[in-house]
Amino acid sequence: MSAENLYKAAGVDYGPLDELKRQAQAAALSTAWNLNPHGFLEITGSRGESAYVIDVGPFLLATVQEGLGTKNLVVEALKNVDENGALYYKAAAWDTVAMIVNDLITVGAVPVVINAHWAIGSSKWLESDGGIHLIEGWKAACNESGATWGGGETPILKGIIEPGTIELSGSGFGIIHPKERLTLGDKLQAGDHIILIESSGIHANGLTLARKIAEENLSDGYQTKLPDGRTFGQALLTPTHIYAKLQQALFAKDVDIHYMANITGHGWRKLMRADKDFIYRMHTTPNSQDEFKLMQKAGRISDEDMYSTFNMGAGFAFFVPKDNVERVQKIALELSLQAYDAGVVEKGQRQVIIEPLKIVYPGETLQIR
Amino acid sequence: MSAENLYKAAGVDYGPLDELKRQAQAAALSTAWNLNPHGFLEITGSRGESAYVIDVGPFLLATVQEGLGTKNLVVEALKNVDENGALYYKAAAWDTVAMIVNDLITVGAVPVVINAHWAIGSSKWLESDGGIHLIEGWKAACNESGATWGGGETPILKGIIEPGTIELSGSGFGIIHPKERLTLGDKLQAGDHIILIESSGIHANGLTLARKIAEENLSDGYQTKLPDGRTFGQALLTPTHIYAKLQQALFAKDVDIHYMANITGHGWRKLMRADKDFIYRMHTTPNSQDEFKLMQKAGRISDEDMYSTFNMGAGFAFFVPKDNVERVQKIALELSLQAYDAGVVEKGQRQVIIEPLKIVYPGETLQIR
Repeated sequence: MSAENLYKAAGVDYGPLDELKRQAQAAALSTAWNLNPHGFLEITGSRGESAYVIDVGPFLLATVQEGLGTKNLVVEALKNVDENGALYYKAAAWDTVAMIVNDLITVGAVPVVINAHWAIGSSKWLESDGGIHLIEGWKAACNESGATWGGGETPILKGIIEPGTIELSGSGFGIIHPKERLTLGDKLQAGDHIILIESSGIHANGLTLARKIAEENLSDGYQTKLPDGRTFGQALLTPTHIYAKLQQALFAKDVDIHYMANITGHGWRKLMRADKDFIYRMHTTPNSQDEFKLMQKAGRISDEDMYSTFNMGAGFAFFVPKDNVERVQKIALELSLQAYDAGVVEKGQRQVIIEPLKIVYPGETLQIR
Repeated sequence: MSAENLYKAAGVDYGPLDELKRQAQAAALSTAWNLNPHGFLEITGSRGESAYVIDVGPFLLATVQEGLGTKNLVVEALKNVDENGALYYKAAAWDTVAMIVNDLITVGAVPVVINAHWAIGSSKWLESDGGIHLIEGWKAACNESGATWGGGETPILKGIIEPGTIELSGSGFGIIHPKERLTLGDKLQAGDHIILIESSGIHANGLTLARKIAEENLSDGYQTKLPDGRTFGQALLTPTHIYAKLQQALFAKDVDIHYMANITGHGWRKLMRADKDFIYRMHTTPNSQDEFKLMQKAGRISDEDMYSTFNMGAGFAFFVPKDNVERVQKIALELSLQAYDAGVVEKGQRQVIIEPLKIVYPGETLQIR
């Protein structure tokens, strides 16, 4: 069963939603003229990208709206078997910020303000001390990102949010300054190297599938031990790497970044996120974490489906000219991040090829615009 | 039973949440130093206000994170009895934008970008044509607000969002330009007149109570007829007035706006939103819409509880010097909005007094910081 079909079986079918997204994007585009009276200009090429960008004069402004997805359901499952389970809300909040920030930086922005939206289904949720851990995690992630936590909204939505859980999302804005740092794919060219930066684990994508495997394919569920002693549940809740410091260090050292991709939903298909005709030929795959190996084995999932669903050890990608590769690797290592010189951009029809695994993802398998 | 107790009986107790909000605000404040490397400065007085404001040099930037609350549950209830029920998602989307924009403008900002966050519990939700009406409503409200619809996120959150419903929220940012338009309460003074601008009905606050009344106190529920022929359900789904054009027209005509309040949750207690010691003495109440009268009668709710829960016909307040009042009323009328010269700011301990109804809300009944 393919990952898409696994998701459909789990009640999550993104097909009709993708159609709605396309209609929404057309409607959104038609409102762009509202910027004119302010003397602002939209960067139309940013529509449908990871962040929406406008030119406000002295610099560009990028905005993002993002959410954690269903990762906190793992926290709520652990709360039933682990008396310290509520502590993992810290990771859930951190990851929500990470999802916002790692999208924001792909367009060349530096994060400035992050706002929170935490919606619960019942005030009963507050009886655990999850709230205080959320606050800790959100604050720590804002500091890690170099952004200020502006404000937020914390509604109780009885009848909309399931009792006992929480919906974590938020928004961020950042600046692109100088404007030349805007990174939307125009600079991408054949010959660019694709540098994959290590992930910390699953991050916040593919969790629906991970939860399904814990429930249906693992007799010990989240308590299943991994070779390194962690449980599967603990591994899933490893805080997501935030790549803001790395991106800023690269810009500060004048690395010529041609493109960036946040490896989230759709896994390695995200490497062809740019709206360009290129082959992304990967010759190297990072070591993927044990939790991926466990899921692949227990769920009997093909390599093709694993790499099209999960980040498989690669959380973020920088596309740079060949002579910049060593510099990126050195700067990444200074920030304790492994950087793999893993692939090359080539002329040709849009597709991702993972040579060691004989996988090809044709362009039509990533339709996000 | 007081409105607070009615809410508690309905499973919505904001007490513990308010404590969490205060802790979150303290944590958020501690991240403000992250702005320094950008050369930006936060307007600390905006923390806990309707929008968070920072100084980015040529102008101020205001950001808001907001949501619709539970209003769309009325749409979902109507869908069961009205074959055109899905049409009301247009109003739900419009109102979500209205909630964002009417908060954003209170600090003196002009809305620039609005982003959407629409989370559903199952792809089944998409089987109705609600999605297309959401798009229409969101777009129309952005145009009404003079903002561009940047982007958004549309996750399927199985296990977090109840099946069959949707959680509507979003974010906005705007600019305050010139900076002197920043409106945080510092300009507020004794003698200022309080001008109430008509609401269009319930807007998006007090819906939990309204739904409870429809379910428990009205035999025909949402189908209950109002004197003007509308049903109670239709009345609740009247699109919220967006006050952005009015605020901009007032600024354009050099009205000396001392303060603005969006009358949302906490009803008329929001008139004392400014963190100042003043008495807000109201001598006039607008005619409240029939839906309020129906709820008050059916739910046997006191005036005190009605005015501390609902807007009661007054959706927004401008606080201006006496000699600006006529100008505000004239400009509002040009935009087809009734503006009531309804009260006066006086020296004294923070409280709202509604004289015609002999109601006093002491300062401690509005703790939102």
